[in-house]
Amino acid sequence: MTGDQPTELPLAGMRVLEVSSFVAAPLGGMTLAQLGAEVIRVDPLGGAPDHSRWPLAPSGTSLYWAGLNKGKKSITVDLRSAEGQRLVTRLVAESGPDGGIVLTNAVGRRWLEYGELVRHRPDLVHVQVEGHHDGTPAVDYTVNAAVGFPMVTGPEGHADPVNHVLPAWDIACGLYASLGILSADRRRRITGQGQRMSVALYDVALAMAGNLGFLAEAQVNRVVRKRLGNYLYGGFARDFATRDGGRVMVCALTRRHWADLLDATGLAEVVGALERSLGADFSTEDDRFEYREVLAGLLNRWFARHDLAEVRAALAGTSLLWSVYNTFSDLVADDLIASNPMIQVIDQPGVGSHLAPGIPLAFGVGARAPVARAPVLGEHTEEVLAATLGFSDAELAELVERGVVGPAPAERTAV
Amino acid sequence: MTGDQPTELPLAGMRVLEVSSFVAAPLGGMTLAQLGAEVIRVDPLGGAPDHSRWPLAPSGTSLYWAGLNKGKKSITVDLRSAEGQRLVTRLVAESGPDGGIVLTNAVGRRWLEYGELVRHRPDLVHVQVEGHHDGTPAVDYTVNAAVGFPMVTGPEGHADPVNHVLPAWDIACGLYASLGILSADRRRRITGQGQRMSVALYDVALAMAGNLGFLAEAQVNRVVRKRLGNYLYGGFARDFATRDGGRVMVCALTRRHWADLLDATGLAEVVGALERSLGADFSTEDDRFEYREVLAGLLNRWFARHDLAEVRAALAGTSLLWSVYNTFSDLVADDLIASNPMIQVIDQPGVGSHLAPGIPLAFGVGARAPVARAPVLGEHTEEVLAATLGFSDAELAELVERGVVGPAPAERTAV
Repeated sequence: MTGDQPTELPLAGMRVLEVSSFVAAPLGGMTLAQLGAEVIRVDPLGGAPDHSRWPLAPSGTSLYWAGLNKGKKSITVDLRSAEGQRLVTRLVAESGPDGGIVLTNAVGRRWLEYGELVRHRPDLVHVQVEGHHDGTPAVDYTVNAAVGFPMVTGPEGHADPVNHVLPAWDIACGLYASLGILSADRRRRITGQGQRMSVALYDVALAMAGNLGFLAEAQVNRVVRKRLGNYLYGGFARDFATRDGGRVMVCALTRRHWADLLDATGLAEVVGALERSLGADFSTEDDRFEYREVLAGLLNRWFARHDLAEVRAALAGTSLLWSVYNTFSDLVADDLIASNPMIQVIDQPGVGSHLAPGIPLAFGVGARAPVARAPVLGEHTEEVLAATLGFSDAELAELVERGVVGPAPAERTAV
Repeated sequence: MTGDQPTELPLAGMRVLEVSSFVAAPLGGMTLAQLGAEVIRVDPLGGAPDHSRWPLAPSGTSLYWAGLNKGKKSITVDLRSAEGQRLVTRLVAESGPDGGIVLTNAVGRRWLEYGELVRHRPDLVHVQVEGHHDGTPAVDYTVNAAVGFPMVTGPEGHADPVNHVLPAWDIACGLYASLGILSADRRRRITGQGQRMSVALYDVALAMAGNLGFLAEAQVNRVVRKRLGNYLYGGFARDFATRDGGRVMVCALTRRHWADLLDATGLAEVVGALERSLGADFSTEDDRFEYREVLAGLLNRWFARHDLAEVRAALAGTSLLWSVYNTFSDLVADDLIASNPMIQVIDQPGVGSHLAPGIPLAFGVGARAPVARAPVLGEHTEEVLAATLGFSDAELAELVERGVVGPAPAERTAV
């Protein structure tokens, strides 16, 4: 995979060893691979628990695993054996000046911790993804419940917590992990010193609750935020249903947006009269939020009288921020997706040809790296061990024979 | 702020100029500041639109702005004047070898684009945050509607889209922006060449829908994913209400989790009989997901017969992943938050002393950088112009007098 990438990608030369599972750490490693690093994901023989995670293609191949491991190399090693552990340790130690970088969410594997590996690689950069900062486990679903967002998400008046479906904390945690590696790499490049870092999923969620003002609002204002359904807090934005069953999200965040929305819907006069009689100023976000239900009620009537095509026509060309709600099926049927320069057709073993995204970071105008597929589990075991540690074919065959490393995928299929 | 940070932070020395608003770009800049960079946020006189964004403290100070701009320097400049634009351009050009880095989500400001600034700083690193890859605007709420998650989020059977409250796309986009800067900085350090990058909010969302398998599921399997409420897709996890009105999220992701859950709830025998009569194997995630409603129905009865304290006692010490649902108010009242090493008390002008998070990345054992407060708008205008461009007090006073740059905050209050 990596060999296909143009050498001008920003992380060209960097070598990262990843021992991971599920979303956060694999996404962190994939991000580095998409930026040009050689990322070697090490899995136990047969794969980590995420290797069979839903959704699955009809072949049984995990679409989830394929999506989160694009562009990596994959090797399989018996991680419970001392010999397998020594092999992985050597891959860290002997990976050249731009190597010696480990990303992992494994816990309870002492040989894989910073304190052990640094004995073999003094300038080691080691980023540990964990559940809580004390090392106890957590997953996106438990962290999300713990930090408050399910209590303010969902339809107004709904009594129970509403979990997100997007594993947002895993995503942010994985990106922080890759930021940790890049920042530690910078420091190592300047000072020669490696370092350990860690990032806890729970801390990511708690930090964001703080960064966005939710914690301060509860502390300083002693306000218990309520569910607002699809309204935006502190401004005017909401979803509206069209006559023909379409649905659009409409955001009037600025004075100009609001004026354009009133123009497009022909409500300027009615809203103006309302504004004067209430003594309100709907050119301010505060008053648009205060009277959101009244304003939405008026707008609702306009949307309910128009088909989606009419709504599109009326809102096109205005300054308004708006979007139709799509399903995932709508998205893949949409020419706009296929024509997005980030999206390319890849051929993934077990899945076949399908549209897949590269990294959303674009490097310069029009220059996109090819989207690399995910490896097949164990695809690069022999290649990596030969290239990095100099094993001969005979030595590799013997390691496979003894079960210290996994066989190449084709061999396994044949067995 | 930055002067207070220990020089061993990994990005010490890096200088970033940020012209931004709202969440994504400010979070990207704050992340770099939290990693040790000097980040100068440049705002128009009086502040950008996010400066008054809700939630507000009783003083009117935005808790949102304060939360997303911690650890930065703030300068205010008349960005519409040619002279103000020249000043900002000089701050980019003359910021030393580790400077020349721009992060912005401003659009339609030609003088601030890569193509203009690079004429003054040949090794410029420039990261543009945008709505869509073609430069058209979008916000988290419209992007979220567009990419499918609101159609699968929310209570089972709920007909309408459910927006998230967490601006997850803004968060991921901001972290990608900071990754762009760090990766381009690495390449510049090696090759001497700067580069432009861009990251579109919509592309971030679309990429994640792809990375997580949602797009492939729709393309390859032609499956339209349904709402599952608070169930986890493809495994067994759900929320349960306790007798006394508590609520817990419980995840049995592995065989051991499941066995522990049955032990803790005394359901092993009943579930075993059910398993045999159905011909199911609840030690597999597939079957736990397939029969999730039956299993949850049985578990529901156990949780409904126990108070939260009893549930805590029963689940403590098991391998299960579980959490109580908290409100934001619960969180700030919780000793665990105050004792989290990432959280510190900061004194924010207009807000007062409150608990605020640092970056969730921990550097080594126990070494946390002090959590820096946000600047007051324009707090560092004179300091930055004097230090970087060598302006004298008289020259600075004259610039303030003519309105090219904003006055120091105390002076403005006095006016």
